[in-house]
Amino acid sequence: MPSVFTSERRVEFCETDAAGIAHFSSLIIYMEQAEHSLLRSLGLSVAPNHTSPFGVSAPTEPNFSWPRVKVECDFQAPARFEDILFVETSVASLGTKSVAYQHRITNGSSSIATGKMTCVCCTFQGDSLASVAIPSRIRELLQTYLMANPP
Amino acid sequence: MPSVFTSERRVEFCETDAAGIAHFSSLIIYMEQAEHSLLRSLGLSVAPNHTSPFGVSAPTEPNFSWPRVKVECDFQAPARFEDILFVETSVASLGTKSVAYQHRITNGSSSIATGKMTCVCCTFQGDSLASVAIPSRIRELLQTYLMANPP
Amino acid sequence: MPSVFTSERRVEFCETDAAGIAHFSSLIIYMEQAEHSLLRSLGLSVAPNHTSPFGVSAPTEPNFSWPRVKVECDFQAPARFEDILFVETSVASLGTKSVAYQHRITNGSSSIATGKMTCVCCTFQGDSLASVAIPSRIRELLQTYLMANPP
Amino acid sequence: MPSVFTSERRVEFCETDAAGIAHFSSLIIYMEQAEHSLLRSLGLSVAPNHTSPFGVSAPTEPNFSWPRVKVECDFQAPARFEDILFVETSVASLGTKSVAYQHRITNGSSSIATGKMTCVCCTFQGDSLASVAIPSRIRELLQTYLMANPP
Repeated sequence: MPSVFTSERRVEFCETDAAGIAHFSSLIIYMEQAEHSLLRSLGLSVAPNHTSPFGVSAPTEPNFSWPRVKVECDFQAPARFEDILFVETSVASLGTKSVAYQHRITNGSSSIATGKMTCVCCTFQGDSLASVAIPSRIRELLQTYLMANPP
Repeated sequence: MPSVFTSERRVEFCETDAAGIAHFSSLIIYMEQAEHSLLRSLGLSVAPNHTSPFGVSAPTEPNFSWPRVKVECDFQAPARFEDILFVETSVASLGTKSVAYQHRITNGSSSIATGKMTCVCCTFQGDSLASVAIPSRIRELLQTYLMANPP
Repeated sequence: MPSVFTSERRVEFCETDAAGIAHFSSLIIYMEQAEHSLLRSLGLSVAPNHTSPFGVSAPTEPNFSWPRVKVECDFQAPARFEDILFVETSVASLGTKSVAYQHRITNGSSSIATGKMTCVCCTFQGDSLASVAIPSRIRELLQTYLMANPP
Repeated sequence: MPSVFTSERRVEFCETDAAGIAHFSSLIIYMEQAEHSLLRSLGLSVAPNHTSPFGVSAPTEPNFSWPRVKVECDFQAPARFEDILFVETSVASLGTKSVAYQHRITNGSSSIATGKMTCVCCTFQGDSLASVAIPSRIRELLQTYLMANPP
């Protein structure tokens, strides 16, 4: 049975637009924040050793980053200021080097948006990112939320 | 021969994140802003009669809004602070009630991101949005950028 | 004895910048969100009747809006991704038509930022905002958090 | 005679809020972006050697950063979607380690907002920022926009 991680998010005023609704980019950001909450719930972080971007200290272990390579979202209904939304997040697929998260945002009764984000496991090599195999410890933790029957 | 609308965008500091690159949501927003520039180039606006959201004045003509129902983006390479990016935008398809825009962001030489956004033509009916057929005047203008062979 | 409203806020990844810290505008936005939380704790809202911006329905009671006329912030220390911050908010002064909120953001031990925002009570008259006296019911509620000795 | 650096900025849709106007934080961000444009006009950058935040390569020269320690803004009138705004920026004061920028945003005829931002010259020492004297080369360049009679 697939496990789903649920987080809650209120629509903030600065996230609305002149159409009176949450700007679509806010809903996409809610999905990314839900992913980061899911990682925290597993004792992980999307940016484990936050060092200064201009600093020169070498972290003691590889510093993973998870850049997105693909984002797909569908929007079913608008969300408004002060709406309480729920984001249901699962791991849709787990490749050697990438993980895809599936998100569903609801207002408790009806669907607001669904989305899928594919992220690649990378480490920094000097200034640039290079993809690497997801470490087995992280892979095992992510399986907690792996969907049995991804859409 | 398909016509492409090209706009230019510099990566601003507040759009970068702690990974030292433009946050992926910024690239999605560049695509939306390119769409709005394309509309302006045709004498159109994504929000033609901007009235106060809490105001009670009735606009003299229908007020169109173009909520997004689908967003798909692929990210090929990171963009950094002060990079000058170019967004090439076309109309990928033009339905009775919807239009899909195709975007390609480059730094002049290599591809940074590609994306597609599907927007539905709506008018406000009281507080809620209802989809309507794209008016023929707007449809004709949008054909300026219609791709001959959409991907 | 002055009453202080405390809210909690985690620094999100998209709020950081390429200097590796929360962008200063994020801290200012945390202050505005704390104000909105304080209002909710009193049963109020910064935008009580959210109607469509393009809609033509007249709300049944005046629709208040609280545009900011002055913002002053000092920044003492950086905040980083996933830091848990606390925002302590009070009403620094309560004029006939305006209210000033005082904010202090800490990470639990040291001060990150302090700020003051002055907001004017307005109603919409057609498309434009006109300042009005703060209704006595709202004034009484705001006194809950009025500082005895504002700085 | 004081020299003023003028930049232009259109209000984007995602920068508006449900009150139908540019969110106040957008106007503050326009001021920061105007500062960065002023710096570019002098051949400078607010983040000269953009290295990866997680990278370990040492830049060949000190990497300056200019965190804000104080922001003060007054808002005179709302700005709306697609308004073209002009930001007039000067150097209000130039201390040993800090610079204060004065901004005035207009829509060409009337004032929208004024603001002042004080930034401290810092270099990264490992992960943390330490304030340093503004290098004489940068100081001389900034004097180009120094106001004769700051407010």
